[in-house]
Amino acid sequence: MSDPLQHLDSLAQHSDIYKNARRMAIIDVGSNTWRLIVVEYVPNLSFRVVDEVSETVRLGEGMAESNVLRAAAMDRASKAMQVYAGFCRASGIDEIIAAGTSAVRDASNQVRFLARLEAETGIKVRVLSGEEEAYYGYLAAVNSTTLADGFVIDLGGGSMQITRVEDRQIREHISLPLGAVRMTERFLTSDPVKEGEVDALRGFLQGQFAQFKWFRHKRGMRLVGEGGNVRLAGRLIQKQAGYLLDTLHGYTFRASQLKDIRDQLVERSVEQRRRMSGMKAERADLSLAGAVVVHEAMRASGFEEIEICGQGIREGLFYERFLTEGETPIFDDVRRASVLNLAHLHRFQERHAVHIAHLTLSMFDQLPPGVHQCRANERDILWAASMLHDIGVTVDYHDHHKHSAYLILNAGLPGYTHREIALIALLARYHRKGEPRADEFAALLEADDDKRLLQLCALLRLAEQIDRSRDGVARDVLLTTGRDWAQLELLVRGDGQVALWSVLRHRDIFQQAFGLALEVTLTPSAT
Amino acid sequence: MSDPLQHLDSLAQHSDIYKNARRMAIIDVGSNTWRLIVVEYVPNLSFRVVDEVSETVRLGEGMAESNVLRAAAMDRASKAMQVYAGFCRASGIDEIIAAGTSAVRDASNQVRFLARLEAETGIKVRVLSGEEEAYYGYLAAVNSTTLADGFVIDLGGGSMQITRVEDRQIREHISLPLGAVRMTERFLTSDPVKEGEVDALRGFLQGQFAQFKWFRHKRGMRLVGEGGNVRLAGRLIQKQAGYLLDTLHGYTFRASQLKDIRDQLVERSVEQRRRMSGMKAERADLSLAGAVVVHEAMRASGFEEIEICGQGIREGLFYERFLTEGETPIFDDVRRASVLNLAHLHRFQERHAVHIAHLTLSMFDQLPPGVHQCRANERDILWAASMLHDIGVTVDYHDHHKHSAYLILNAGLPGYTHREIALIALLARYHRKGEPRADEFAALLEADDDKRLLQLCALLRLAEQIDRSRDGVARDVLLTTGRDWAQLELLVRGDGQVALWSVLRHRDIFQQAFGLALEVTLTPSAT
Repeated sequence: MSDPLQHLDSLAQHSDIYKNARRMAIIDVGSNTWRLIVVEYVPNLSFRVVDEVSETVRLGEGMAESNVLRAAAMDRASKAMQVYAGFCRASGIDEIIAAGTSAVRDASNQVRFLARLEAETGIKVRVLSGEEEAYYGYLAAVNSTTLADGFVIDLGGGSMQITRVEDRQIREHISLPLGAVRMTERFLTSDPVKEGEVDALRGFLQGQFAQFKWFRHKRGMRLVGEGGNVRLAGRLIQKQAGYLLDTLHGYTFRASQLKDIRDQLVERSVEQRRRMSGMKAERADLSLAGAVVVHEAMRASGFEEIEICGQGIREGLFYERFLTEGETPIFDDVRRASVLNLAHLHRFQERHAVHIAHLTLSMFDQLPPGVHQCRANERDILWAASMLHDIGVTVDYHDHHKHSAYLILNAGLPGYTHREIALIALLARYHRKGEPRADEFAALLEADDDKRLLQLCALLRLAEQIDRSRDGVARDVLLTTGRDWAQLELLVRGDGQVALWSVLRHRDIFQQAFGLALEVTLTPSAT
Repeated sequence: MSDPLQHLDSLAQHSDIYKNARRMAIIDVGSNTWRLIVVEYVPNLSFRVVDEVSETVRLGEGMAESNVLRAAAMDRASKAMQVYAGFCRASGIDEIIAAGTSAVRDASNQVRFLARLEAETGIKVRVLSGEEEAYYGYLAAVNSTTLADGFVIDLGGGSMQITRVEDRQIREHISLPLGAVRMTERFLTSDPVKEGEVDALRGFLQGQFAQFKWFRHKRGMRLVGEGGNVRLAGRLIQKQAGYLLDTLHGYTFRASQLKDIRDQLVERSVEQRRRMSGMKAERADLSLAGAVVVHEAMRASGFEEIEICGQGIREGLFYERFLTEGETPIFDDVRRASVLNLAHLHRFQERHAVHIAHLTLSMFDQLPPGVHQCRANERDILWAASMLHDIGVTVDYHDHHKHSAYLILNAGLPGYTHREIALIALLARYHRKGEPRADEFAALLEADDDKRLLQLCALLRLAEQIDRSRDGVARDVLLTTGRDWAQLELLVRGDGQVALWSVLRHRDIFQQAFGLALEVTLTPSAT
C-alpha cells in the first residue's frame, strides 16, 4: 500500500463544509481533576462536545494544612497544561477559556503559579471567585435540567457551591471550602478510615450547613447535584441497583441509597474501594468524603432526592458564549433546545420534521381525553419524536429508524427524564414499521406506557403517510371520533389521492391503538 | 405548549452550515420496483443516501405476453411518479435523474406513456439502452466492491444484464429479457408451481446462457450479483444460516445454498413463501423465478460463489456525477474511498487521524514478521481503524469508542469484507481502554484474529498516547526488537516528556500483545 496520506490531500481542500462552526476549548483548572473540553458550535443554534482530555492533577493537595500550592502539585499542573496547550494549538481552536477554582483562588502563591503556567504554555488562567463559580454551575444546571425552584450543589475537590434557584433565576449562593480533597486530607487520613474520623467530618459539616438557613427544602423544590463526586456516587448506586442505562445526567437517587453507599465505603480500604463496580480508580480515596459531604448536605436541607446534572462550570462558561441573543444566557425552554440541538447536529430535514410535528400534535389535540391514555407530558414526547424520527439517516439510510433510536438514547436529551428519552427513542424506532414493543425499557417506564407508546406511534405513523410525498399536500387534518369510529379528514391543497391511499394502507395501527374503526376522506383546504 | 414551530424559525436562518452539499434524486423506473433515492454529496469528497421511497409498481406486468404497458400498470406508475415529483419539489433537490429500464425500453407504447408521465409530473424519463443499463450496474459494482476480474450480473424485473470485467474495466456485456416478472409470467403461472413449470424455465435459461461462451468462470475470476432478486436470495440464505449480521452488501453465498432455497420455494405456495424468515411480502411471487435465474446463471458460468452488491444502476448514475476528476468515474481505490467517505461524513479530525495512521503503520512496518500474526490485509485494517477511531464523537463524546464501532458496523465499508469491517469496528471499540474481546463477532473471524486484534489494538493505543497532545510532537517512531524486548524511540520536535510519560502508562498492552518488554526513549527529530 502506498502512502496513506496521499489520496487525502486532494480531498482535503473540499473540507470547508466543516468550517462554519467555531471551536472553543474550556479548561477547568480544578482542585482535583483538570479537564479540557472542546465544544464545536454555531452560536445560538447547535453545539456538541467533540473532545475531552482529563488529568488527575490534585492541585489542591496539602491545602487543608496550609493555603500553599505544593511544588509537586505545580509540576503536575505544568505538565497537564502543556498537554492542553499543544492540544489547542494543534486542534484549530478559536478561543481558549481556562478557569481556576478553589485551589487556585485560595493559594497564597497563586500569582507566581499562574505566571509560571502562562510563561510555559501561553495559557492565561482566569480565577473564578466563589460567586462566579456558583453562577457558572447554576447556568449549567438551568440549561440542562428543568429545575425551576430549588438548589444546585456542586462539590469539587476544593470547594462546594450551594445556589438557590427561584423561577429559574439565581437567588442566593455560597461557596464553602468543603471539597472532597480538603475534607479527605483534614478528616479521613487513615486507610481504612476509623469510625471517629467519619463522625468528626459529619459533625463539622453539620455545623457548616447549619449556618445557611436558606438552604432548606420547601414544597415544590428540587435538588440538583453537580461535580465528579456526585456523579461517582450516582454511578456506584446505579451499578448496585442494576440500573438499565449508564447515563448519569438526569439520574435521580435517594438519600437512603447514598447513605448505603457511604456505609460501604467506610468499611473498605482505598484498595478495596477500587474493586467496587462503577468505582473510578483515581477517585477511590476521595469517594468517601464526597459521599459524606453530599449526604450531610441532603440531611441538612431536608431533601430526600437529588438529581444528577452531568454538566458543570465548563458548560456554564460555554453557555455564556453560545447564548448571545437573550438578556441572560438561558434557554427559553431546555427540552425544546435539546431536541433542536440534536436535530441540527444530525442535519435533520427541517421542513419535513416540522410538518410531521404539526400533524401529530393536531391529531393528538383533537382526540378526546377518554380515547387515549396520554397526558400533556406525552404530547411533548410526541413532539420530540416527530422532530427526531429521521435523524438516524446520518448513520445509514438502511434501518435508519433503529439508528435514530440509538442516537437519541446515547446522546440523551437534557431536560427529559430517562423514561421520556426511552419513549422518544421507541417512537423513532417504530415510526416506519413493526409492532411497537417497550419491553427492553420496561424498568424505566410507567404502567400503561406500552399503550401510550402504541397510541403515539399510531399518530406518528399516520402523519408519515399523510405527508408521504413530503410536499405538505395535506395542510392539516380534522379528526372526529364516535363511540367506535373515527374519521380523519385530510385538508389538502391539490391532489390528495396519494396521501389518502398511503394512509389507508396503515390504518390498522390506529384501530389497534384506539379501538376505533378509521375512515379517511379528502377535503380541499381553504388555505 | 405553544406553537412548536415558533422557536425554530429564529434558528433556521443559521442552518446554512448544511448548504454546501448538493442533493440529487435518482429514480429507478424499473420493471417491478420503482425506487427513488436522494443522495447528498460534495463532488469528489463524500456522499450518503439520505432518503429513499420505494414503490412496487410492476410496470412490466403482462409484458411476457405482449410488449405493451397495461393500463393498470401505467396508472400505478403515474401515482408513484406523482409521489416522487412532490417529494423532489419539497426536498430541495438540485437535480433529478429518472432512468427507465427493460419495461419502458421494450414497450411499444413507450412514447405515449412517457409523455403522459411528463405531462402529469414534469419528470422526464431517460430510457437506458441495455448497454447503458449494464454499464451503470458495472459502475456500481466496481465502485463498491474490489472486483477486478470476473462478472457482474444484475437481475431485475424485466431484464438481466451480464457484464465481463477485466482489470476493473468493462469488456463485454449483454442484456437479456430474463427478468423475474417476465419469467414468472411466462413459466411459473401456477400457485404452487408444478414441477414441469420449473423444468421448462430451467431448460429455457440453459438455452439462453449457452449462447454466451464468454460467460465462463476462469481462475481468479469473481462473480458479483446485483438487484432485488439477488438480495432477496441472500437474505433468505442469511436467515436460514443464522448469519450474524443483516448486512447484504459484501455477503457471499454458494450455489448449493441457493439451490436449497430454490427447492424450498418450489414446494411452497406464494402465501407460504410470505411466512419464510427474511421474505419480502411483495416479492414472494417473484422469488422463485429470481432464485432459478440466478442459480442457472451460476451453473452455466461455473461459479461456485456469488458476492452480493447492494448497489445498482441508481448508484452507477450517481457515480457519473460524483466522480468528475478522473477520466472514468471509478475510484482509484474503493477501500480507501469508503474509509475517507465515512470519515468525512462524520467530520473527522483529519490531522489527528492522519498522524495516528502514520504512527501505527510506521510501527507495524518496523515489527519483524515473526513477532506478530498479521499480514498485508491487517495492515490495511489498521489504517482504516486509525482513520475512523474517533468518528463516534458525532453521536456523543461519552463512550465515543463504542459509537465509532456502531457507526462502522452499521454504515459498512464497501470493499471490505464483513470480517474486516468487524475487526475495524473492534479496533475502534478498544482504542481507548478495555481488554479487546472479539467473541461477539467470532462467527465472522478467522483463527488467530483475537491475537491480531490485540496486536493491532496495542499499536493503535500506543499511537494515541504518543500523540496525546495532538500536536504531532513525536514526528515518527523507531521500533527495534530483540528476543524478549522492544525499544520504541520517539523522534520528537520540542519537549516530548508528555508523550513519553503517556506511552509508559500504556505499555502493558504492548507487552501483552507481543510478549516483549517495552522500553521507550526520546530522541530529537531531525525534521
